[in-house]
Amino acid sequence: MNPFTTDPAQSVAALGERRLIAHLRAWLGKATSPAPFGIGDDCAVLPASRSRHLLVTTDPVIYGRHFDDAISPAAAAEKLLKRNLSDIAAMGGVPRSAVVSLALPRRVSIAWIRGFYRALGRCAVRHGVTIAGGDIAESADMLGAFLTLLGEASGPRVLTRQGARAGDWLYVSGALGGSILGKHCRFTPRLAEGRWLASRREVRCLMDLSDGLAKDLLELTPAGLRPALTAAALPVSRAARTLASRDGRTALDHALSDGEDFELLFAIAGRTDRPAFERGWRTRFSTPLTCIGRFARTGESLGETLPLERYHGYEHLAGA
Amino acid sequence: MNPFTTDPAQSVAALGERRLIAHLRAWLGKATSPAPFGIGDDCAVLPASRSRHLLVTTDPVIYGRHFDDAISPAAAAEKLLKRNLSDIAAMGGVPRSAVVSLALPRRVSIAWIRGFYRALGRCAVRHGVTIAGGDIAESADMLGAFLTLLGEASGPRVLTRQGARAGDWLYVSGALGGSILGKHCRFTPRLAEGRWLASRREVRCLMDLSDGLAKDLLELTPAGLRPALTAAALPVSRAARTLASRDGRTALDHALSDGEDFELLFAIAGRTDRPAFERGWRTRFSTPLTCIGRFARTGESLGETLPLERYHGYEHLAGA
Repeated sequence: MNPFTTDPAQSVAALGERRLIAHLRAWLGKATSPAPFGIGDDCAVLPASRSRHLLVTTDPVIYGRHFDDAISPAAAAEKLLKRNLSDIAAMGGVPRSAVVSLALPRRVSIAWIRGFYRALGRCAVRHGVTIAGGDIAESADMLGAFLTLLGEASGPRVLTRQGARAGDWLYVSGALGGSILGKHCRFTPRLAEGRWLASRREVRCLMDLSDGLAKDLLELTPAGLRPALTAAALPVSRAARTLASRDGRTALDHALSDGEDFELLFAIAGRTDRPAFERGWRTRFSTPLTCIGRFARTGESLGETLPLERYHGYEHLAGA
Repeated sequence: MNPFTTDPAQSVAALGERRLIAHLRAWLGKATSPAPFGIGDDCAVLPASRSRHLLVTTDPVIYGRHFDDAISPAAAAEKLLKRNLSDIAAMGGVPRSAVVSLALPRRVSIAWIRGFYRALGRCAVRHGVTIAGGDIAESADMLGAFLTLLGEASGPRVLTRQGARAGDWLYVSGALGGSILGKHCRFTPRLAEGRWLASRREVRCLMDLSDGLAKDLLELTPAGLRPALTAAALPVSRAARTLASRDGRTALDHALSDGEDFELLFAIAGRTDRPAFERGWRTRFSTPLTCIGRFARTGESLGETLPLERYHGYEHLAGA
């Protein structure tokens, strides 16, 4: 759906700021904070956390960049919240509250913003998230929603990207590649899986895949190590195969290079009882889990492994 | 300073995302979080708060809206953080950590983004704020920085906009109007004053002035009451007088209607020993404090008061 209208009477400018905020609150429904600490004060006020690490992440959706006319306002809103939920999942955390800062051209239609906020509210309630506040700034042309999500650790441990060692096994959830065909809006953030991983001592490090496995894997790789992957082991999605049949690239290339998988990537200690670990996952989750290789020392041979340097993930700001 | 460059070699696109993030971290200097919980993981990780209410606020600066070519990147960065600090001040809170989400066209110059982040880092350190993380999203044309600031209550009490009663006295800090002549970037967020107000039982409610007194005052006014102001009492700024001499509007109109004062507006109980309260303020702060009137019941006469309905603050999204 195109977010803009040429009919001034149907635009957000026709509402004005005060009425728009009242509408946003109504559209968010049960996702808003209870009075007196709700939307509309200088700050959102949240209850003190239960002496656990606080997690904060921020990601936007921008029209023309993260969604377009082919995407419904509801799908754009879900993508906004779920991108941030996926970051909380990637630390093994529990999401709690969000604030949303809008950059809003005055010719955005009321129908679009209504669809967006209603879906945002529903998605927030479904994940136990309160939309605690926000800001609206008029912008000339750019339509964007910048969400900051707060969460807390699910236990004493927060899983970061640091901690992999030589011999650790590498795993991914789900299937990779071709997200642009639909998954980039319809994915399920792996929150329960992330919490479970944070409770398991054999898990060393964890992240979510947003820029493609070939690129994101570098973030987990400490100096002196290299990821040794087996091409045949990679869980290539059906969408990656569909794209490959259209554009002449291989499905493997799509699985390694496409962005917005929003799956979990993690390493577990090399001495782990892997069958027991995998059984533990499968008794809890229907999400596929795949061992894709392990971390080797630089120079150490583990037989034939994927030449990852030939693949490139999504490069922001690439090229001049 | 114009943020854009026509020389690709001098643009942020020439750096690419990874090097840009490394630069941002360096430019922020001591304002970044210590490893391993610093910039670059899926979420920023903050220590658990000391069982006090958590405060969250979000405000952007957008090129062409909140700053322009006449403003240095340093001044734009300070405005960004201080707008949010002013919101924490307006709840009587203490600022702690921030995340910054950038909407960044690739033709932004490295010189501009360096000036912006260096100043952001210095301003953050000065206020005890950690820049804990963020996001960079490429945008076609809009340059904007969306900051979310976390803080905590300075004590058991959080001052909201609710709580004014008939007979309460109204106060403002500083002088009002004409902010566009320079104060909109150079103001001092009233953090110490806000904390002190939150510790005083006679203070009923508190907010910061961002859209002009005439408009913002409505936010503090409960149903059944009206603010009864004395025109002669209003602290009119020199800048408001300068603007008035140029545009033919009155200085009073500017003091009531101009946005971005970033001063505190609050009400104290009608039975308060006002001289003692004002002495308490003046022994602590050099910031001017002015009693501008009181809350009356609707229909109740308090002599000649300002016809506030004739004045209008800054209207976002006004007009179709």
